[in-house]
Amino acid sequence: MKTEELLLKIREQKPLVHHITNWVTIYDCAQAIRSIGALPVMAHAEEEAAEMTGISSALVLNIGTLTTPLLKSMHLSAKRANEKGIPVVLDAVGAGATPMRSEAVKDLLDNSKIDVLKGNAGEISSIAGLQAEVRGVESGTIQGDPRSAAKELAKKLGNTIVITGKEDFVCNQEKAYAVKAGHEMMGKVVGTGCMAASIIGAFCAVEKDYAFASAAALAVYGKAGEKAAAKTKRPMEFKHCLMDELNEIDGKGTTMEGVIVATD
Amino acid sequence: MKTEELLLKIREQKPLVHHITNWVTIYDCAQAIRSIGALPVMAHAEEEAAEMTGISSALVLNIGTLTTPLLKSMHLSAKRANEKGIPVVLDAVGAGATPMRSEAVKDLLDNSKIDVLKGNAGEISSIAGLQAEVRGVESGTIQGDPRSAAKELAKKLGNTIVITGKEDFVCNQEKAYAVKAGHEMMGKVVGTGCMAASIIGAFCAVEKDYAFASAAALAVYGKAGEKAAAKTKRPMEFKHCLMDELNEIDGKGTTMEGVIVATD
Amino acid sequence: MKTEELLLKIREQKPLVHHITNWVTIYDCAQAIRSIGALPVMAHAEEEAAEMTGISSALVLNIGTLTTPLLKSMHLSAKRANEKGIPVVLDAVGAGATPMRSEAVKDLLDNSKIDVLKGNAGEISSIAGLQAEVRGVESGTIQGDPRSAAKELAKKLGNTIVITGKEDFVCNQEKAYAVKAGHEMMGKVVGTGCMAASIIGAFCAVEKDYAFASAAALAVYGKAGEKAAAKTKRPMEFKHCLMDELNEIDGKGTTMEGVIVATD
Repeated sequence: MKTEELLLKIREQKPLVHHITNWVTIYDCAQAIRSIGALPVMAHAEEEAAEMTGISSALVLNIGTLTTPLLKSMHLSAKRANEKGIPVVLDAVGAGATPMRSEAVKDLLDNSKIDVLKGNAGEISSIAGLQAEVRGVESGTIQGDPRSAAKELAKKLGNTIVITGKEDFVCNQEKAYAVKAGHEMMGKVVGTGCMAASIIGAFCAVEKDYAFASAAALAVYGKAGEKAAAKTKRPMEFKHCLMDELNEIDGKGTTMEGVIVATD
Repeated sequence: MKTEELLLKIREQKPLVHHITNWVTIYDCAQAIRSIGALPVMAHAEEEAAEMTGISSALVLNIGTLTTPLLKSMHLSAKRANEKGIPVVLDAVGAGATPMRSEAVKDLLDNSKIDVLKGNAGEISSIAGLQAEVRGVESGTIQGDPRSAAKELAKKLGNTIVITGKEDFVCNQEKAYAVKAGHEMMGKVVGTGCMAASIIGAFCAVEKDYAFASAAALAVYGKAGEKAAAKTKRPMEFKHCLMDELNEIDGKGTTMEGVIVATD
Repeated sequence: MKTEELLLKIREQKPLVHHITNWVTIYDCAQAIRSIGALPVMAHAEEEAAEMTGISSALVLNIGTLTTPLLKSMHLSAKRANEKGIPVVLDAVGAGATPMRSEAVKDLLDNSKIDVLKGNAGEISSIAGLQAEVRGVESGTIQGDPRSAAKELAKKLGNTIVITGKEDFVCNQEKAYAVKAGHEMMGKVVGTGCMAASIIGAFCAVEKDYAFASAAALAVYGKAGEKAAAKTKRPMEFKHCLMDELNEIDGKGTTMEGVIVATD
């Protein structure tokens, strides 16, 4: 029930979601936001980043093609978002693959409240201090349990941690959810991870319980993926279909029952 | 009749259209140019921007993800375009949303001849000095009449002003057109506004009456949108269909009668 | 036979292919790599470029929207790739169109081993010292024979040269291939040239005979283009279809016989 309500809220309020993101999937992030019913804006110059955040309802940061000037703008925008009390989502793309990315994430976590920290198992494990291989932007072998590490990290940071994968995992210091939705087709196409962070941004813009909002976002996104996969198994066709399912999904025809499950 | 002739001219001459544009829709702008039958080139380094303009037939500037280095290259390219006598189209994406964007537009208008200034109602109103809300890159509430303001601005600048919307409006100091084409689907997908500016650039490359060329561009673009919308109501599918209709449209099977209407 | 084996090797080894590329087709390059079965990573900051190359199996450089900082990162990454012994592919987009691009290519060739230098006839001719017109990123009129010039250049540089076109041409100092595959639809859509370079990168990651690997890449890519063109003649639909054919092609159902032909 609540998931559907959040979806309706997004479509009524049309929150502006400011992105400072990467150049590979910047279009996908913008269109995902538009498809779900919110308004995207991309602005990364340090001269205007904070001001754009100031008129927005959520901030989504993505380090997929990070540079030092981009990182500076991310700090300025995150600071403004914190002052304004709007959610900050950080998609830690490639954290653990190079020192620059790992340090950038640490730097952002140290200097701002990152309300939702999202990554794949390798990225989150690496941030949490486990030995984890990250091949470019892909998760490799991990020493230890990513979910336990995420829960420790959420406690330490007082925020929400999201691990995306076959089954998504969302936790804060009080609770944890498994999100049982999605399709393996989502792993065959570039951009699905980045779009997930954007959709999380849109949901957090309308719901202060960021852990639940993140789980709801992933539930809706995963269901849209399932619908798209029912129509095609060709990756690019699937991707465009996924975006169009995001536009059409209303949470009514699609049952959300059993998708978000409280877990340890 | 004349609209169809311009379309033929583009396909015969294949003008090179130089863009300094944003990272969200840079692909869409390039492909829109290719689909309409012209040649795109994107080059934004200050070391080569003016030289690339020097071998081109039109220059399209778009401030969607503006930075200070990009703005510098825009100035260099606009100057060269003015010297060479080729049209400069400026898509004032987000003007009014932040001071940086508003000042960049003012700066470009002060230092170069911007032959065609294009925006949505909020952006143009804001540039013309009305109180206008711009939510990121979306038009919000406006105090006053955008069309009157555009006509005043065209007189002051001695150029062509384009306001895109449900019905597009084009004016210079002597005349004004309403363009009655397009489909609401064009508002559901990211990139249609940016592509409109690119198409205007291609038409202005082959016709010195920039007001008519802009109206003709929007007529053809709007008709392509209608054709695409007749095939699908799914946003991403629609967008790709729109690009393919641009490739196929010949202005013969499609009547352009009554699309471009002289107005006050 | 060997072409199919390379395709299998890519899908088994999933080599990481690092790109420093342009902003127009950056998504297409990433997805082409994913579709063929390898892993893409895009990283252009000078602080991490060489490190990302250090964990990769091939490096693809593309100067389509070159800037001075990007060029610096390309040098750092090419140097690391040379030290590591992994292949470096350079797509010389727009070489000959502006001095900046021509000089950047010269600079890269002078300071690193560029294992595969790829361009259209105009770009390669211009690099080889012929009088050649390059209209933005399109090949224009050329004084002389591009293939002879390419063979001279390959001898001088001790590397592989690729000229893409209606029939692709690949040579090193010992041999030359004509690749008889592809479809004119590939020329109607932005991004096909850039994707070709990415696919070459993936093949060179698994085969040290870079001339044959390049020819095999173009053979598979061309065949995928033919399959896509058999399904649609609409440019954007074709492009997405091409990417999906890259995902499906196995070199078994598709005969590769007669596609790669030894030539003078």
